[in-house]
Amino acid sequence: MSTATHNVKKVAEYRQRILSLLLNNKELVDGILGRPGDQKALSKSELLDHTAEITHLLEEMHAADLADLLEALPQDQRLALWRLVDTTKRGQTLVEVAEPVWDSLIEEMSDKDLLKAIKTLDVDEQAYLAQYLPRNLMGRLLTSLEPDERTQVREMVHYGKDTVGWMMDFELVTVRPDVSLGTVHRFLRQRKTIPDATDKLFVTDRKNTLLGEFPLTAILLNDPQTLVSQVMDSDPTTFQPEDKAEAAASAFERYDLISAPVVDAKGKLMGRLTIEEVVDAVNEESDTTLRRMGGLSPDEDVFAPVSKAVKTRWAWLAINLCTAFIASRVIGLFEHTISQLVALATLMPIVAGIGGNTGNQTITMIVRALALHQIEVGNISRLLLRELGVALINGFVWGGIMGLVTYLLYGDLAMGGVMTLAMILNLLVAALMGVVIPMTMLKLGRDPAVGSSVLITALTDTGGFFIFLGLATIFLL
Amino acid sequence: MSTATHNVKKVAEYRQRILSLLLNNKELVDGILGRPGDQKALSKSELLDHTAEITHLLEEMHAADLADLLEALPQDQRLALWRLVDTTKRGQTLVEVAEPVWDSLIEEMSDKDLLKAIKTLDVDEQAYLAQYLPRNLMGRLLTSLEPDERTQVREMVHYGKDTVGWMMDFELVTVRPDVSLGTVHRFLRQRKTIPDATDKLFVTDRKNTLLGEFPLTAILLNDPQTLVSQVMDSDPTTFQPEDKAEAAASAFERYDLISAPVVDAKGKLMGRLTIEEVVDAVNEESDTTLRRMGGLSPDEDVFAPVSKAVKTRWAWLAINLCTAFIASRVIGLFEHTISQLVALATLMPIVAGIGGNTGNQTITMIVRALALHQIEVGNISRLLLRELGVALINGFVWGGIMGLVTYLLYGDLAMGGVMTLAMILNLLVAALMGVVIPMTMLKLGRDPAVGSSVLITALTDTGGFFIFLGLATIFLL
Repeated sequence: MSTATHNVKKVAEYRQRILSLLLNNKELVDGILGRPGDQKALSKSELLDHTAEITHLLEEMHAADLADLLEALPQDQRLALWRLVDTTKRGQTLVEVAEPVWDSLIEEMSDKDLLKAIKTLDVDEQAYLAQYLPRNLMGRLLTSLEPDERTQVREMVHYGKDTVGWMMDFELVTVRPDVSLGTVHRFLRQRKTIPDATDKLFVTDRKNTLLGEFPLTAILLNDPQTLVSQVMDSDPTTFQPEDKAEAAASAFERYDLISAPVVDAKGKLMGRLTIEEVVDAVNEESDTTLRRMGGLSPDEDVFAPVSKAVKTRWAWLAINLCTAFIASRVIGLFEHTISQLVALATLMPIVAGIGGNTGNQTITMIVRALALHQIEVGNISRLLLRELGVALINGFVWGGIMGLVTYLLYGDLAMGGVMTLAMILNLLVAALMGVVIPMTMLKLGRDPAVGSSVLITALTDTGGFFIFLGLATIFLL
Repeated sequence: MSTATHNVKKVAEYRQRILSLLLNNKELVDGILGRPGDQKALSKSELLDHTAEITHLLEEMHAADLADLLEALPQDQRLALWRLVDTTKRGQTLVEVAEPVWDSLIEEMSDKDLLKAIKTLDVDEQAYLAQYLPRNLMGRLLTSLEPDERTQVREMVHYGKDTVGWMMDFELVTVRPDVSLGTVHRFLRQRKTIPDATDKLFVTDRKNTLLGEFPLTAILLNDPQTLVSQVMDSDPTTFQPEDKAEAAASAFERYDLISAPVVDAKGKLMGRLTIEEVVDAVNEESDTTLRRMGGLSPDEDVFAPVSKAVKTRWAWLAINLCTAFIASRVIGLFEHTISQLVALATLMPIVAGIGGNTGNQTITMIVRALALHQIEVGNISRLLLRELGVALINGFVWGGIMGLVTYLLYGDLAMGGVMTLAMILNLLVAALMGVVIPMTMLKLGRDPAVGSSVLITALTDTGGFFIFLGLATIFLL
């Protein structure tokens, strides 16, 4: 780790070199994986040269860069590269790699290697990886830990994902309030290391109750005689292990925190949260939101085999097919109307489409505002009125234009009128549902980002067809 | 600032209290805004009491919390609250508040107040706000700065948004390589303060060329006689002002950085980047992506007046209407076919809908993989083949089911066959376009997240109608 380069340009260079070696050279990949295959094109010495070069470059790379590289490779190339990663670096790389890539990497490793790789990590990282391990391996990992480490792992797993308890680490420095800063300085010098991302020290009493915190810089800037109790902030931002990861991320952002203490309900210091863990959590969260809005499962990786991709996507497709079928049955109700006026079949997708578009705009805004806590109970009705107002104006403008176009195309004034009216009504439905759907999901305790888009499209499609064909049946036949 | 609470529970309490005072009390809002209106319901002393209570709570709140609160309020309430914010706190609050809320707040302030508020800020924050100021005010702001500050502001504005130059700050501590850590310690003590988020000091020569960096903790842990050159890392992660904000964010995440030096092409130290700025940039970026995918403008705020919302959304609606119109014209080509077989009108939205769904799944995955740099030139064709494979399997399965349903509904075997074939073909179109569209956008130097979704839906709709009705014309008439 310590020898790995952080130089952005060098990393890009190494990465490109490894990629070009692996992606354009099937024989090399087969050779590393020990597959017989057709290796005529590559001599034994070339194979060894390339392998040695990659191994050397890997040594120079940071685990996080290595993880990215693994994620950017198709299955075979990924496994070939993984074979060349040193065991001491594998643990850290596993921590950095995205979840969907996990399975293929740990399958490659023997139980013994896997445990060895994991043992190189901090306790919180071990706990993070523990969740992905097969049951028997997790047991072996737990028994190999010191008793207090075991408790820590159990605790983290207990709080579960997306909580502060899950994200926290246990690498912290505590001092007593009645010692001088000079004493603290001597204590640190004896300790020889300070954990990463330590910008403050925590002050506790004999029973481990958190009394306050003070910045590391206080030791540098103040007189050594100064007491800890004189420089400490006794009402710091603290978190409890049950707190949502999202809330912690928001506090870190707003107060520009680098680390913060985690305490239990009685105020006892349990661990700390650092900006590193928070940034990782935020990235994971925004990635998940993006996937959910697009109807992708969090398990799907861009190089997952076809069979896995089919499996992870089928649920959304099935739901979509059901809603499309319902919309289709609504049209079916009006087959008699359409048979008398075929132009309706041509025009109806416009009404449905514009509704879907508006509904999705509204829903995106509401989901976002909910995530940012900008929506309070007192202002929902105001918001709804605003969206309905926007829909009404857009309905008159765009509905009016489409009504005119319809009239010009078919020379039928009544049909133009029906078009305009249908568009106005469907835009109103879209605005209403765009507010109601995410708010209802929230009330039901569900994530408003999941499925909202599918649901609104279904409603505006079905609604659009029903409104347009219904109006046509009444006014045009 | 220093008296503001960071205690999450207290903040939530204050926020709720202010919200309930403002949202349920039109008279109070009118009173603060100095509107005549109907104020019978509220006596003069109640008005003063409530105003005093809010002002007191505001004093206790951090600027970031205040910004959030302003964002969560409708227009009138927002302005009323803004009136009560102390001038000394307004500058910091403006930095924290989201862009769409900006306009209404600065409109409320006189030029003099605005300049006074901005002058309380660091240079990089002043530059950030400068971009939003009317031209004449920006000139006045620039002339009021020290010459070197003016150069810094000009530089930042020059590099423009989404660059490292735009995000960097100038609050840094530099030392020479040939001094001892003890000397550095004395120097810091004389300096009395250390800028926020300082985890390392930068080492420069007389010409300001960056020679290396070393952690602040080195001063605490090492012997005071140790020379800076002995503890410094001479190949640190550095950034150049032209670098993309996104690339810097990625490096901060992977190397767990808290601060990093920014150097020019000749290696001279220009400023530094801190995790605080990076986190803000990442949040803004993911927010923008979310808005873009949903067809929302980055300017729209959840409480923007109807007129503004109509204006910011009309472009997407117009595009959507155009594409829907084109799809409709494709159906129009087949009016003769539909008039002979009305069931086709009923079934065609299913083919179009499933294509849109698949296309969006594919595009979401590609956009995400592009953002994470998981897609390299060497693996596009592999990816395309995979997506086509997934589409083919889904086409056979779901197309087969819908073909069967069609046969059961209409008793027409040929129609069932056309349905199945059309679904397979449209899913293939969706997969192909889902890969091709974002890749083409990228080649053209455009953001693949913008408009991809609209474009794919347009193509799968038009394609779906054309394929289904075309096949029907050939095989069913």
